[in-house]
Amino acid sequence: MRVDIQFIPRHVSAKEAEGKAFVVIDALRASTTIVEALSNGCAEVIPVVTVNGTFNLAEKFPREDTLIGGERGGRKVKGFDLGNSPREYARDVVWGKRLILTTTDGTKAFHMVAASQHVLVGAFTNAHAVAQRCMTLRADPVMVAAGKRGKFSLEDVVCAGMMIDLLERRGVDLTDGARAASILYRSFNGDLLGMARISEHGRSLVRLGFEEDLSFCVQTNISLLVPVFRDGSIRLE
Amino acid sequence: MRVDIQFIPRHVSAKEAEGKAFVVIDALRASTTIVEALSNGCAEVIPVVTVNGTFNLAEKFPREDTLIGGERGGRKVKGFDLGNSPREYARDVVWGKRLILTTTDGTKAFHMVAASQHVLVGAFTNAHAVAQRCMTLRADPVMVAAGKRGKFSLEDVVCAGMMIDLLERRGVDLTDGARAASILYRSFNGDLLGMARISEHGRSLVRLGFEEDLSFCVQTNISLLVPVFRDGSIRLE
Repeated sequence: MRVDIQFIPRHVSAKEAEGKAFVVIDALRASTTIVEALSNGCAEVIPVVTVNGTFNLAEKFPREDTLIGGERGGRKVKGFDLGNSPREYARDVVWGKRLILTTTDGTKAFHMVAASQHVLVGAFTNAHAVAQRCMTLRADPVMVAAGKRGKFSLEDVVCAGMMIDLLERRGVDLTDGARAASILYRSFNGDLLGMARISEHGRSLVRLGFEEDLSFCVQTNISLLVPVFRDGSIRLE
Repeated sequence: MRVDIQFIPRHVSAKEAEGKAFVVIDALRASTTIVEALSNGCAEVIPVVTVNGTFNLAEKFPREDTLIGGERGGRKVKGFDLGNSPREYARDVVWGKRLILTTTDGTKAFHMVAASQHVLVGAFTNAHAVAQRCMTLRADPVMVAAGKRGKFSLEDVVCAGMMIDLLERRGVDLTDGARAASILYRSFNGDLLGMARISEHGRSLVRLGFEEDLSFCVQTNISLLVPVFRDGSIRLE
């Protein structure tokens, strides 16, 4: 088994995806929001690339079963039920509901690797569970750092590095990129909040008033669930 | 001033290149070979993408003034004068000559950023000089890690990190990617040979019998020269 990483998501063909499992990581905040929503009893999350796409899709479902969430420029979109803060996705809000979600980078990343049989959702909040699941799959894991508008995102790569570090301890082989991510994770020596605060995306969230989301998103292993993206929808299996 | 990095070279348009200076880094071994050849009196290095291209171009110059060098699969190409080991490029071999060079990744990287007014050649062997030059240019530096066949290459990113570390000490701003490279560089704590030995490319060079090239290429600051790529040719200015 050999672990690899995409520092920026790129389109993967069905042929390239063979024998691989993709872990989509948008630690600030889409992945964390998805893990949180499903951990609180949300029935499924449908990631959609555009804002218009979310409204069009929502019309196909009973309004009372359906939530529309996500962000543009970090902020809740006009007409949406929820933004992209995982703290909004409490049990009494999401339980039993379908969530249609669009975010600037995270939801796109799922569609880039949709040709794969195995697409998992990874965050700091479920990193251990994701690494454990990777060990049991008959596939080489590829961490997909969602990045920020096509640019390298420190927090996503450090989160990938946390999972890679766990896999490395089990004797898994690393590509150079995976090794670099693991070294980066260890270099922060447990100070993930400090890391999030110096990251470009973290600084922009603080400016927008979402500082508490940083603390929320760097909590490690508060969920043992591994959401899976398949046929356009993210669910627990 | 803000430093950025490309972990894998990508094509840059003239518009994107405005106000930026690109440092092409293929530490194992093309950049090091170019710095070494020019430091030993080679008149110019012309990077060419294909093997056929080198032979075609060589025909346009007097044979006695011209050397053809480079590699495919790490090895010297049949009919070439020299391979891609910097140790071959001694003063008595290269002095006063024009070198036509093709390598798997490094020579391509120059053509990706050729639209820029400022393209420098960076290696461990001239890292300090390159960082110093970046400080004097009126442009934001972008480190371009040549990578290995489109994949992340540890040694190129660590070499970029060495230059970024020098710029950071002078108060220059960093993108997340540049910060990650600088952290990676510092994590090896001066053991650049150990880093080269665990890198994928380093291991493949050792298998091919080029272990001594690793020690050569991780020598820091043995040259004060900054080769510049302009109008298809790399020279000292």
